[in-house]
Amino acid sequence: MALIVQKFGGTSVGTIERIERVADKVARFRDEGHDIVVVVSAMSGETNRLIGLATDILPEGPTPRELDALVSTGEQVTSALLCMALHKRDVGARSYNGSQVRILTDDSHTKARIRHIDDVKLRGELTQGNVVVVAGFQGVDENGNITTLGRGGSDTTAVALAAALKADECQIYTDVDGVYTTDPRVVDGARRLEKITFEEMLEMASMGSKVLQIRSVEFAGKYSVPLRVLSSFEDGPGTLITMEEDAAVEAPAIAGIAFNRDEAKLTVLGVPDIPGVAYRILGPIGEANIEVDVILQNIGEDGKTDFTFTVGRGDLARSQDILSQTVTELGALELRVDSKIAKVSVVGVGMRSHAGVASLMFRALAEVGVNIQMISTSEIKISVIIEEKFLELAVRTLHSAFELDAEPEEQPTAV
Amino acid sequence: MALIVQKFGGTSVGTIERIERVADKVARFRDEGHDIVVVVSAMSGETNRLIGLATDILPEGPTPRELDALVSTGEQVTSALLCMALHKRDVGARSYNGSQVRILTDDSHTKARIRHIDDVKLRGELTQGNVVVVAGFQGVDENGNITTLGRGGSDTTAVALAAALKADECQIYTDVDGVYTTDPRVVDGARRLEKITFEEMLEMASMGSKVLQIRSVEFAGKYSVPLRVLSSFEDGPGTLITMEEDAAVEAPAIAGIAFNRDEAKLTVLGVPDIPGVAYRILGPIGEANIEVDVILQNIGEDGKTDFTFTVGRGDLARSQDILSQTVTELGALELRVDSKIAKVSVVGVGMRSHAGVASLMFRALAEVGVNIQMISTSEIKISVIIEEKFLELAVRTLHSAFELDAEPEEQPTAV
Repeated sequence: MALIVQKFGGTSVGTIERIERVADKVARFRDEGHDIVVVVSAMSGETNRLIGLATDILPEGPTPRELDALVSTGEQVTSALLCMALHKRDVGARSYNGSQVRILTDDSHTKARIRHIDDVKLRGELTQGNVVVVAGFQGVDENGNITTLGRGGSDTTAVALAAALKADECQIYTDVDGVYTTDPRVVDGARRLEKITFEEMLEMASMGSKVLQIRSVEFAGKYSVPLRVLSSFEDGPGTLITMEEDAAVEAPAIAGIAFNRDEAKLTVLGVPDIPGVAYRILGPIGEANIEVDVILQNIGEDGKTDFTFTVGRGDLARSQDILSQTVTELGALELRVDSKIAKVSVVGVGMRSHAGVASLMFRALAEVGVNIQMISTSEIKISVIIEEKFLELAVRTLHSAFELDAEPEEQPTAV
Repeated sequence: MALIVQKFGGTSVGTIERIERVADKVARFRDEGHDIVVVVSAMSGETNRLIGLATDILPEGPTPRELDALVSTGEQVTSALLCMALHKRDVGARSYNGSQVRILTDDSHTKARIRHIDDVKLRGELTQGNVVVVAGFQGVDENGNITTLGRGGSDTTAVALAAALKADECQIYTDVDGVYTTDPRVVDGARRLEKITFEEMLEMASMGSKVLQIRSVEFAGKYSVPLRVLSSFEDGPGTLITMEEDAAVEAPAIAGIAFNRDEAKLTVLGVPDIPGVAYRILGPIGEANIEVDVILQNIGEDGKTDFTFTVGRGDLARSQDILSQTVTELGALELRVDSKIAKVSVVGVGMRSHAGVASLMFRALAEVGVNIQMISTSEIKISVIIEEKFLELAVRTLHSAFELDAEPEEQPTAV
């Protein structure tokens, strides 16, 4: 008998029929003797409906405290309905909102951070044999004001509850059946991973963001909560996200190929090669709240250097505006921009101990004629910036080159 | 400067446009320097939408605790939206749900009773110059479970808050502009009352129920909270419901003519005139949760008597079933039922000191040929049961006979 936290997102509880299916799933786990805490999102569309009402009144942006009071009702509705569906199946169940649990947060409305979770009431319910259904995405500050946790907040709620309750597993039910070696829409041979480490999951962000919010993965890693990504609609073991030491010793070097089309490149040519240049270029960009991804500074010649970085495509125009002034101030030669680029990354904790990942990657890309514009590396990831038109080709080539199409020998099983 | 509690029902906040109009009204009172606590219902249709979701899952009746968690979100949504509309008008405003205020209730889900209201937070907000917008209809029990107060619960919330805060007035905004001497759809000359006493208001139930929930009137009377009924959509002084001693000394004897079509009559003929008969007839009716209105037992002859009572028409068939068995057991002669009846009542605290109200009532009805089937009296009300077809005639006749068409001389003004 295990203690399991299960999280169902908005699509999984989008209709009464789907809530009934979730109840079937929860009831099955309960029947197997597990203690279950369920975290639910608002029914899909509900949060947007509520925000629509608010912006009808205040188009320039509703007051954060009242917006939180408003939208937090969406999860409360789902939690009550799921309890009713469980009662229909003779499963004892009780709904709790963030304030009732007491999920204490700071007072940053619409993007609050969890400070402490009181586990007394939840443990009491579990002891009495009840399933507890918690409204995700919300908490309460020290003064009793309702807060919400921002995007992906229900994932964060689930992971935080699992950490507080020292749950055996935190299961995140989504509309995909796990984490894949790469996007199955790009590579036919893309394969569901049985296991992946937290670090790899973080680096796989460009795929991972569709499956899990980065913040909840970080949180789960920090508190060593085993996370499992599964499908709400099909049965299957999903993908377990776990600590490195739990992963199979003979795990393949590479977990997967991540990619991101949403990048644009800015290059300042002929920048004086003096200290503080990077700050003078990127400072104004950061102040404008534009996130920078890859940064590259070439070795200078004749006291001049080239400085290149990438931003999200939506931020390109603004970045260009800001930089054109900087270029003048710095006495640089020219500003060049390119929005037809993409980033492809090879991710895997295994590359720490397996030499040659980078050379295999570069050779494979060269063999199919893909030119690499920029390279960026971390301990468990190598990323390259290439022309966007080569993206699919590069992903497929690397997926084969690292033998990700084949099943690994070790096959861990789910709870 | 007064402390005013204002309650707006579901129709008054049914759309964003109407919420904006309510905000205009509240802002106007605030600008006059009053301290304002607003109590809101769910947007019209919202509670039914939520209950519909619940009965989709559990058609035989949703679990009470979860039903309360579900429907209480409706009022929370309105309270947040109204705050936003007030912010738009530069009026400081903060929403509170039942748990946040802390409106402590017993644990009778879906029909909880208020036990205690914590006024610390509300007073703190008022001191800071904020309007407080409280989600009506809801509270929280000792264990932190969300409860709701049952039908008309938002009226009860408003009155209870007014009592706890010792408010100068509790204003109930509705879709009518006050309490009338009788239904204006039946009598053209029906007139809005400037004042009415709590007792009269209670006895006017058949009209009053459309305006105010009986429970909130009782509550207001018990705690001497001056209640005012006003229109959400038009400006005007409404009707003040107040203690008898506040009412004008020379108030007319009669406040109004109430009536009720929803009655049916059951008569058990030839009942043995022995002790305990009333209990043996009405006991099973009460056990079936059927409410009995007028009860009449004729003086017996030859050891036999006739026993008559009225119930709501919807309960007639069930009452008949139950009684047919009782009739056999008692050895009574016959059971007669009549659903074509109506009740007309003359209501007024003045009748305590003005003799002759009953005789004027009976004479006026006799003059237009209305036969009286049953009579029932209380200290401030005389009711008669008549054939339903005579209802309009009887109401109009009594409205004129008691000179209710004319304005009284004293004209109190609103806050």
